[in-house]
Amino acid sequence: MSKVKLKEDERLDDLIHNGLKIIQSKSHFSFAIDAVLLADFAEPKSKDKVIDLGTGTGVIPLLLMAKYEPRKIIGIELQAELVSMARRSIQYNGLKNSIQVKEVDIKKLKDEFVAESFDLVVSNPPYLPIGQGKVNSNRSIALARHEIEVELNDIVKASAYLVKYRGRVTYIHRAERLDKLLRMMNEYNLQPKELRLIYPYKDRNSNLVLVTGVKGAKPGLKIKKPLVIYKDNGNYTSEVMEIYYGSNYSNKVVD
Amino acid sequence: MSKVKLKEDERLDDLIHNGLKIIQSKSHFSFAIDAVLLADFAEPKSKDKVIDLGTGTGVIPLLLMAKYEPRKIIGIELQAELVSMARRSIQYNGLKNSIQVKEVDIKKLKDEFVAESFDLVVSNPPYLPIGQGKVNSNRSIALARHEIEVELNDIVKASAYLVKYRGRVTYIHRAERLDKLLRMMNEYNLQPKELRLIYPYKDRNSNLVLVTGVKGAKPGLKIKKPLVIYKDNGNYTSEVMEIYYGSNYSNKVVD
Repeated sequence: MSKVKLKEDERLDDLIHNGLKIIQSKSHFSFAIDAVLLADFAEPKSKDKVIDLGTGTGVIPLLLMAKYEPRKIIGIELQAELVSMARRSIQYNGLKNSIQVKEVDIKKLKDEFVAESFDLVVSNPPYLPIGQGKVNSNRSIALARHEIEVELNDIVKASAYLVKYRGRVTYIHRAERLDKLLRMMNEYNLQPKELRLIYPYKDRNSNLVLVTGVKGAKPGLKIKKPLVIYKDNGNYTSEVMEIYYGSNYSNKVVD
Repeated sequence: MSKVKLKEDERLDDLIHNGLKIIQSKSHFSFAIDAVLLADFAEPKSKDKVIDLGTGTGVIPLLLMAKYEPRKIIGIELQAELVSMARRSIQYNGLKNSIQVKEVDIKKLKDEFVAESFDLVVSNPPYLPIGQGKVNSNRSIALARHEIEVELNDIVKASAYLVKYRGRVTYIHRAERLDKLLRMMNEYNLQPKELRLIYPYKDRNSNLVLVTGVKGAKPGLKIKKPLVIYKDNGNYTSEVMEIYYGSNYSNKVVD
């Protein structure tokens, strides 16, 4: 682990996988279970070149690298402070050769990247349209939650530009907008191929969805088994424990 | 119960609810759990005028009437033999005043019905596009399974014509085509508002989806808790038992 400087308000948090750490701060959006679920679901192959749109503190590239070791991951992020935090986290974890973070506006990707140059595009877009839910007074947190600078359409459009023919895009998004997300993917020729609904408890409404699309693929959606987060007693289900701690979780804890 | 004549090959089957019976035959598609789940999910109100597109033997109108007693149900069906079976079932059950079956081509609805004259449209459309899966050599069964005479688009278009502004449409369809179904509903201004995924077992892929749309509604999809059909031991789950036998099931059987 390389030494890095922490700014005031910043802290070094545990990323669980392979002893990785991540720099987070009270003034910025901290990663939550959705990043962990997205990184798990995306399943990059070892030869893949991956890009994460709106990478924030770089949590998704770090988790993807820890779990799947794809050839290369680029994260792009609009906010300079987050870019700085992500870069220092990458340095701290000794991953500078495999993960790179660029300060790029998602609407100006063409200046920075050649079309169809990635095997996999991932994104955890802002969940809320403007006008729905209170906008956080902290600008950085507000940008991560609300569609202030970037709308879902921008993300899907950018993904379609970046991903190779037959390459994959994987998103996590709010269940409430599943229909819109699937429709946009179809508009940009990113055929939805795998869908997994996330239910907080087995008898509650779904709040999040994981979707993978393949550019130029034939129609035909596989809806995978439900992903339930908590057992009735409020503890994580064994599947979520495995996603967090890997398959050797079962050796450690008896469900 | 009125007396009705059964033709050769026909039999009088139990519909479970309220002692209702239905005429079915080996030469025609027999109702399955999807009809039962659709009727349960559609939840018509007592003041509703309902139409079932492609009613077959009339199973959905019979189940809807037994469970919810809406004001009026029309079933339309292209095949004369099925229309005859449905009409005799309705007569047998003494429901001629509340359920009516018409021999109508779904593509020629405008000759028969005024626009926006129903509160609720339901349909269990053919599941398979031509070219996918073996087409049954029995023409009547083939028509119920494959999009030979009617495509999904015809059903959604017809629903949009028939349903009132702010009225509802409810479908059951294959999970594999969820994206297409949601997209078509959106095209015809039938905003998807409720979705429920059906999983045969809790750890298997979903095979069927239930969707309700509302004409002219704002976006915003509620994805309800998973509907699991079988327990691990192969028996119906208690929810499916309740859907079949009603809420007094729990007094009869201990789960």
